[in-house]
Amino acid sequence: MSAPLQEDFSELTAAMAATAAGVEDCLEALLPQPQGPEARLHEAMRYAVLGGGKRMRPFLVLETGRLFGAPESWLLRAAAAVECVHCYSLVHDDLPCMDDDALRRGKPTVHVAYGEAAAVLAGDALLTLAFEILADEESHRDSLVRVRLIAALAEAAGARGMVAGQMADLALEGAGPAFAEIERLQALKTGALIGFCVRAGALIGQAEEEALDALLAYGADLGLAFQIADDLLDDGASPEELGKATAKDAARGKATFLAALGADRARTQALNLAARAAARLDFLGEKAKLLQRLAHYAVARRR
Amino acid sequence: MSAPLQEDFSELTAAMAATAAGVEDCLEALLPQPQGPEARLHEAMRYAVLGGGKRMRPFLVLETGRLFGAPESWLLRAAAAVECVHCYSLVHDDLPCMDDDALRRGKPTVHVAYGEAAAVLAGDALLTLAFEILADEESHRDSLVRVRLIAALAEAAGARGMVAGQMADLALEGAGPAFAEIERLQALKTGALIGFCVRAGALIGQAEEEALDALLAYGADLGLAFQIADDLLDDGASPEELGKATAKDAARGKATFLAALGADRARTQALNLAARAAARLDFLGEKAKLLQRLAHYAVARRR
Repeated sequence: MSAPLQEDFSELTAAMAATAAGVEDCLEALLPQPQGPEARLHEAMRYAVLGGGKRMRPFLVLETGRLFGAPESWLLRAAAAVECVHCYSLVHDDLPCMDDDALRRGKPTVHVAYGEAAAVLAGDALLTLAFEILADEESHRDSLVRVRLIAALAEAAGARGMVAGQMADLALEGAGPAFAEIERLQALKTGALIGFCVRAGALIGQAEEEALDALLAYGADLGLAFQIADDLLDDGASPEELGKATAKDAARGKATFLAALGADRARTQALNLAARAAARLDFLGEKAKLLQRLAHYAVARRR
Repeated sequence: MSAPLQEDFSELTAAMAATAAGVEDCLEALLPQPQGPEARLHEAMRYAVLGGGKRMRPFLVLETGRLFGAPESWLLRAAAAVECVHCYSLVHDDLPCMDDDALRRGKPTVHVAYGEAAAVLAGDALLTLAFEILADEESHRDSLVRVRLIAALAEAAGARGMVAGQMADLALEGAGPAFAEIERLQALKTGALIGFCVRAGALIGQAEEEALDALLAYGADLGLAFQIADDLLDDGASPEELGKATAKDAARGKATFLAALGADRARTQALNLAARAAARLDFLGEKAKLLQRLAHYAVARRR
């Protein structure tokens, strides 16, 4: 992906960093302070969530909501809820009985740092916290919007969404699935939660149905492009560059786009998806510029 | 506990069985049908939830709601949500990295039957499903009641409730904690969710604040009495009688009431708590009879 690397993403990355800082403050306030004999649980939760990641999902919530003039404080809480779910899924996916990863975001994974029991429980508590955040009236004045956010998050994260994707990923290891099967499992594993991000921004901003449909299509393309880029990074980068173990997917016979398509076709596919994602937001004009840049960035990033 | 064993609980157990059947039908309809490469996840979820347990928590939701004339269909869904949370907690607590139990309700535990990865994911998906159930408009006409149920469940189940209790339980293993510490951890580990059950019934039935306070006090006493009885059963029964491994707590240096009080004082304490729990509902008259019987049954049961 040499061409996109030449591009200047400084405006986007500055905006992402500003959003990440706001979400970090919000998460810091929402996560429990370590206390009592269960302090280890609270420490593990904070370790899993704070100070890490690109916060792409929070950025999607914020930027989508901003399109419709939604209040920042509501968007930040929805973004924090999404990040809790994303981080819980990483903690559980990293467990020895799952993907067995020891490194994440350049640090030891939660079960390495706090033990397996605390990692399982921290994941459970983060998932629970996400719903607690959304149920609170500070997340939206209208209780009907809050239950809609909760219903959408549960659907995206549960047995017909993200968790199904992780199960399918494990089940298809070594099975050499076809492209369509990988596309489906990745749409569940990472696409569903990314879809929730744009849906949340649109719900909070009370967007029209038509805009929501376009945004969901953008999210689906973005999610796939992001995942293909991830597969290519896993193959080409060193653990130092990526902050997590690399080249493990191939060794494990994971159902990756790279395995199904080969590097050249995968690269082309990612670029095409990013372009299509961006084009889907043309109708929104200048105000969708950062979301469009994000699609290109998803395939051009080095980590 | 020889005296209460003479008592006749047939009316209560018949009512509990009828409620359990209704909740079973509701859960059967709400749990996903096994499908796709992730079918193992759906099978593990169904295995974890269906066909087992006394369904004491659902009974508490139903009987509390009935005090206030709440519609049965709403109560059943809240009861199903509670049971999803209860069963998820059992699945995760039974994992090798936690209590490492191989037997539950007379059957192999979920991780023994489906593997550890599926067990972790099934627990995650059951927790998520609980919130999905409550967010749906079929659980209550008023969205404000639905978010209140969700907020209360998240608080009871999360990092300041049930999950905190499980972490404290693991942290205090072998530490010989005092009675007050054990009381606190059990109030979190099992009491918080039992408290949610009566709260849910009261919320759905739009009960007055005063009645709710009495019911929450009843729930707290009931929860403790139930847990002390559990400790005594764990000590005295065979695995065949109990359907799960027994006498493991003592071997592991678990922080049990039995260890802190000794068998005689623990037995007296359980009986006193049951009596106090029942007395707290005297003001409700005849209609609270089954809830009062439940308190006595909690300490008289053989499994």
